[in-house]
Amino acid sequence: APAVLAAAGLVVLAQRQLVTGRRADGKINNKVSPEVPKVVTKEDLEAGAKKVYCRCWLSGTFPLCDGAHAKHNDETGDNVGPLIVSVKKSG
Amino acid sequence: APAVLAAAGLVVLAQRQLVTGRRADGKINNKVSPEVPKVVTKEDLEAGAKKVYCRCWLSGTFPLCDGAHAKHNDETGDNVGPLIVSVKKSG
Ligand code: FES
Ligand code: FES
Repeated sequence: APAVLAAAGLVVLAQRQLVTGRRADGKINNKVSPEVPKVVTKEDLEAGAKKVYCRCWLSGTFPLCDGAHAKHNDETGDNVGPLIVSVKKSG
Repeated sequence: APAVLAAAGLVVLAQRQLVTGRRADGKINNKVSPEVPKVVTKEDLEAGAKKVYCRCWLSGTFPLCDGAHAKHNDETGDNVGPLIVSVKKSG
């Protein structure tokens, strides 16, 4: 009976995750600077700059996007993508 | 026996998630533009601009950060934070 109850409980949890699409333990970053309490990135851009920034936390070139979001989206049905920042040329 | 086997399998899955910190179904965005295949944001900044961009996908002011990452980090032990972009003033 305890095993059956445990199984039922876990099935309910698994179903809820499928339905809500919620994160397992909630973490979305398991790779970037694990030693840092909060990963805040500061960027100073100049006129004419164009940068593509990662928002999936899986890029090998973080904070920049390296396209890793595509595999992540394919595998999970997610729809995340980068932030593209452009600065006008001066003059 | 089937119930016991199911219970054992689910316990193994749950433990692996705890150990690896991996996402449940892998999705990290369950809120922003669900109708879009890939959420790519394009921003054009001018001289003197300073913007704080969300990378946790939980902000109520996405693509900008509204501080929602703090609750997320508290609840999950994650360490995500925003991208802060500054553009030099011209002149
Ligand atoms: S690699 Fe993370 S958004 Fe592209
Ligand atoms: S609210 Fe998402 S990074 Fe701050």
